[in-house]
Parts: sequence; structure tokens; C-alpha cells
Amino acid sequence: MKPSNKPRIAVDAMGGDSGPSVVVPGAVEAARRHNLAIVLVGDESSISTELYKLDTTGLDISIVHAGDVAEMSEKPSEILRRKTDTSIQVACRLVKDGAADGVVSAGHSGATAACGMFIIGRIRGVKRPAFASVLPTVKKPMVLLDVGANVDSKPQHLFQFAIMGDVFARDVLGYNAPSVGLMSIGEEEGKGNSTVRKAFELIRDSAVSFRGNVEGRDVFTGDVDVIVCDGFVGNVVLKLSEGLGSSLGKVLKRELLGSWLGRIGTFLAKGRLKRFAKFVDYAEYGGAPILGLNGIVIVSHGSSNQKAITNAVKMGGQFVLSGANEHLKAALQADREILKAAG
Amino acid sequence: MKPSNKPRIAVDAMGGDSGPSVVVPGAVEAARRHNLAIVLVGDESSISTELYKLDTTGLDISIVHAGDVAEMSEKPSEILRRKTDTSIQVACRLVKDGAADGVVSAGHSGATAACGMFIIGRIRGVKRPAFASVLPTVKKPMVLLDVGANVDSKPQHLFQFAIMGDVFARDVLGYNAPSVGLMSIGEEEGKGNSTVRKAFELIRDSAVSFRGNVEGRDVFTGDVDVIVCDGFVGNVVLKLSEGLGSSLGKVLKRELLGSWLGRIGTFLAKGRLKRFAKFVDYAEYGGAPILGLNGIVIVSHGSSNQKAITNAVKMGGQFVLSGANEHLKAALQADREILKAAG
Repeated sequence: MKPSNKPRIAVDAMGGDSGPSVVVPGAVEAARRHNLAIVLVGDESSISTELYKLDTTGLDISIVHAGDVAEMSEKPSEILRRKTDTSIQVACRLVKDGAADGVVSAGHSGATAACGMFIIGRIRGVKRPAFASVLPTVKKPMVLLDVGANVDSKPQHLFQFAIMGDVFARDVLGYNAPSVGLMSIGEEEGKGNSTVRKAFELIRDSAVSFRGNVEGRDVFTGDVDVIVCDGFVGNVVLKLSEGLGSSLGKVLKRELLGSWLGRIGTFLAKGRLKRFAKFVDYAEYGGAPILGLNGIVIVSHGSSNQKAITNAVKMGGQFVLSGANEHLKAALQADREILKAAG
Repeated sequence: MKPSNKPRIAVDAMGGDSGPSVVVPGAVEAARRHNLAIVLVGDESSISTELYKLDTTGLDISIVHAGDVAEMSEKPSEILRRKTDTSIQVACRLVKDGAADGVVSAGHSGATAACGMFIIGRIRGVKRPAFASVLPTVKKPMVLLDVGANVDSKPQHLFQFAIMGDVFARDVLGYNAPSVGLMSIGEEEGKGNSTVRKAFELIRDSAVSFRGNVEGRDVFTGDVDVIVCDGFVGNVVLKLSEGLGSSLGKVLKRELLGSWLGRIGTFLAKGRLKRFAKFVDYAEYGGAPILGLNGIVIVSHGSSNQKAITNAVKMGGQFVLSGANEHLKAALQADREILKAAG
């Protein structure tokens, strides 16, 4: 590997439904547009074949061979126990060894999370790393976490999600004093279940700009920058949003094309309808970062297209450049007293 | 009150943001279109004023005076303790005394639930009554429950929600052998949190057509007829859906009206866009029934328009006519062994 001061992102070239043919050009595009060093991890020959088709002049791109892949049918625990040389394991070891700053994978998300957890490891003091997702809103993107790494979260986990979401929104999205909301089923303090009520008290005492409880309807208004919830709730919200966007798109299409006037109107408004489609297209927002690890790990959707890979790698670079993990460590240190006081 | 064999629905005339001026015409319309007897409960003089404006020839409409109202600022427990004569209390007592078959209220939903619970009472064997909501999908309406009556649900509660949702979908929506899904964060058995995993085993052994785990993305496809979840999750899903529908509508409008061609196209496609707007309009689907009580209680949104009230009253009539509560009792009896076996 060539030495370089750029953020260096290890990309699991074998991940995703289409593998190297989509991941390699997506990663190369990120290297060029966002001035990043890329390590492509996976089958050397397949990666070389894809790289050969592209112009990589002047880019810092290297290959690290990995002879195996994490199959979607395998459980994460089995992969960690029985295999050593899958592309995601090799990529995570590069981060552990300091040869890369972060990992992007569109492969087996459970395996990626497990490798992040057990190979790269948690930041000291982090109880539960969290999957964060950046969602479109009417105004500006919003961070939702956790979206699936943790179920049956305890109040102190939700508290740390608030701290991690705040740092991510500042450093990666560039928000100044982002507002943080706690997902509940009523805006007043005291609404929700017992876990949420206790988490409310903890977050209220932290340094984040706490907006108190928010509800499902607040997800897409853009009035709050970070929403904290248990991974079960967050995962349902994430998948529902993807599903509702696509369902509404289908209904809109059916209605518009169901009459002659509608068809003519649709033809004329095509450019604008495309911009609407972009709003509900999740590829715009790259991947879901796992926060709380000693290095950044970004999980992209298995069906990611080239643009989604580029955006996920870009997010990884921004994370590293901003020093987000150093800020997170400082924030966790500062808030340790709150957790201690709460027992 | 006149005797009649029609289902008799007590309507809280004081409920909702607009009170009698919206509720009374909505209820009268339901009486006419759906052949129902209506008891309007609330301030007699306000109700009479509204009724006077309408043609009620041949309709079975009566008034029962209630001198007080449940204020939105009051806690349900306070209302039950300190007041006796609010419109929702009087309406629920009519059901308890057999003078009405069901209640519709667009007022204080917490107070309505509490009055339903403590005045009308639970069906024997029902552990937790549930709020159900009928949501639009790409194909046909879908029942989601619980949407907010219960948080921290236990597996046996989710099990009974499945039984109640099945009966409601059959009797009120007219579905034959409705498919029932359990909300989780992965389709395979064993995914989800500990409560969901235990509920999975219980529902699998019941008489409902169990589809296993479903995910957030399945809510709007119409591929499953009933989705069961804890009230926290269901409430987030419900409010998110309302919010996302309206947010997408705003973005669509902004995009379409942002260019001349878009504006002309929009004008031409207007009729079709209106049908799309109808799809995301929750007034189409009336109110949220509370299932598991000795009589039907339907909670409508505070911002309900006349059409929403009419649809909620219609739903109440259908519930009574179909004998849904008798079917529910039989189903609960049949499934008692499963719960017993599970301890």
C-alpha cells in the first residue's frame, strides 16, 4: 500500500448483489471525487478485471486479496467461528491493524456488524454500538438511530445513542448544535414505555440539545436533526419508510397513467416527477454507519447501485476527516457522570 | 329513545376539534346512508341547533343530554374520578346499560379508552383491549394493532391481538381467512426481540392464518391483512405513516409547481393527483376501534371532518351487525388452551 495522508477506506469489493462490477467503479468514483485512498478487499483477479476497465490515473487505489466471502445464508457467528479469510474479515483487520481508517460493505450486514464488533472493537465506554441511518425529510437529512443493531435497549443505551447521534450529525452532516429527539408515543414527558421515560431523564441532563419526546410524525418534517430509539422500533421505521415511499410511488404512477389527461400532464411534468422520485430514493443517502466502534464501519444496502457505494465511501471519508471518533470519546467521557449518578 | 332493530350507535357530539357542527351532520349522514340508529350525546341545546339545520325525516335519531365535557388538558384518571357527566361517560353508560350497541368519539382519546375500559368493561378473557387502525395499502385496507393502548406488551397480549385482528378483518372488512403477520425486524422465525419470539410460537399454534414475521416494508404492500405489534411500535408506525404521506405530498407539490412545464402538467393531471391525495388521506378510513370491550368503541381523530365521522359510525354499525364480539368470544375460548399450555 502506498503511504498517504488521505483517509483510507477499505471497501469490501465482494459485497452487494452485484459484487465487484458495481462496488469497484463506485469506490473508484469516490476516490476521485472526494480525494480518498481506497483499499479494495476481495478476490484479486475479479477486482483487477473491474479496475482494468476504469481510469485510475493519479488515484491512491490498492488491492488486498481475500480468498473467501461471507455467504448470506451463513449466520454471523458461524462466519466468525469457521472462516478467517472472508473479504469483510480481512477489511476489518486492516482497520484493527491501522492499515485503513474505515470499512464500507454492501455485503452480509449481520456479518459486517459482528466483524466490526469483534475484530475492530468498541470504543471504550460504549455499551452498545448503534446502526444509524440518514433519512430524507422535507427540509434536510435526519439521523435515526438505532435502526437494528440492538433490540431490548436499556435507558443507558438510548442515552448513548443520543450522544453518538449528536456527534455524527455535527461531524458528518455538518449540523451546528443538532436537535435531538427521543422517539415516543406522546410529546409530554412521562409518555412512552418505562425504558423511554428513564432515558428521557438521562438525555435531559446531557450536553446535547434535547428536544424531548418526538413522535412518528416528526420523522419526515425535518424539524429535529437526530431521533433516538430502540433498534426494533428504528428498524421498523426504516423499512416502513422505504416501503411507503415505493408504495406511494406505485399508486402515484397508477393514478397518473390511468387517464389521457393524466398521461399528458405526466409527460410535461416528467422532470419534476423525477426530482420527486429522487426524494424517495434511498441510494441518495449512501449507507448506515455503525457508531461506537474503533474505526468507522458503514453498511450499504445489498441492492446498492454505484452511486450508493460512492456516497457510502464519501461518508466514511468525512467521518475520518472530521475526527468524529475523537469527539465521541470526549463526549462519552463528559457524560460518564450522568450514567454513574443514575446507577 | 325509540325502539328499533337497527344497530344503535351513541355518538359523542361534543368530541373533536369542531364539536357538534361537524359531528352531528356526520352522524346524521351515517344514519341515512347506512341505516343506523343514532343517539347524539352532549349538550342538548347545541345538538338541537345543529340538528335543526338538517333533514332528519324518517331517521332514528335521538339526543341524550350530558352536561359536561372531557377537556383535552385533563388526565383520563382525573376525568373518571372527578366527573360523572361528560359526554363520553354518558355515551359509555348507554352501552353498559344496553341502550346503545357502541360509541363513537372524536374527543379525548385517552378518556374514551379509559371509559371504554372501566364503564363498558372488557370481554371476559381479554387481557388487554387494543386500538386497531385501518391503513390504506397499494391493494386493500390493512388492520394494524395495537396502535397505542398498550406499551410493554407481553407475548400473550400480542397473541390475543392476533385473534382480535383476525375477527375484525373478517367481520368488519369482510375478508375471508385474513392473513396475519407479526411485526418484527427480519422475516425468519427467531428474529426480533424476546417478546416477539415468544408471541411467534403462540400465534403459530392458533387458528388464524399466520404468515409469520413481517417487516416495516410490508405495511403498505397489501400482501398481509392484519399486522400485530406492541402499542409503542404501532403508534410510531401510525403517526409516521400519516406524517410521511403528508410530507411526500408537500415535496410532490413543491417539485411539481417549481417549473412552468410542471405547473401545466399538474393542471392537466389534476383529477388523477386528487385521487392520489385521497390515498394518503386518513379521513377515508374513519376511526380506530378499541377491540376487546363489551361493546364497540371507536376513536376518531380530533381533526376528523364530517366524512371521517360518517365512516367511523358506519364501521361501528358493521361491527354490531356482523356479531364480531360474539365471534371474538368464541375465538378466545377456543384459543384459551394455547395460553394455558404456554403458562
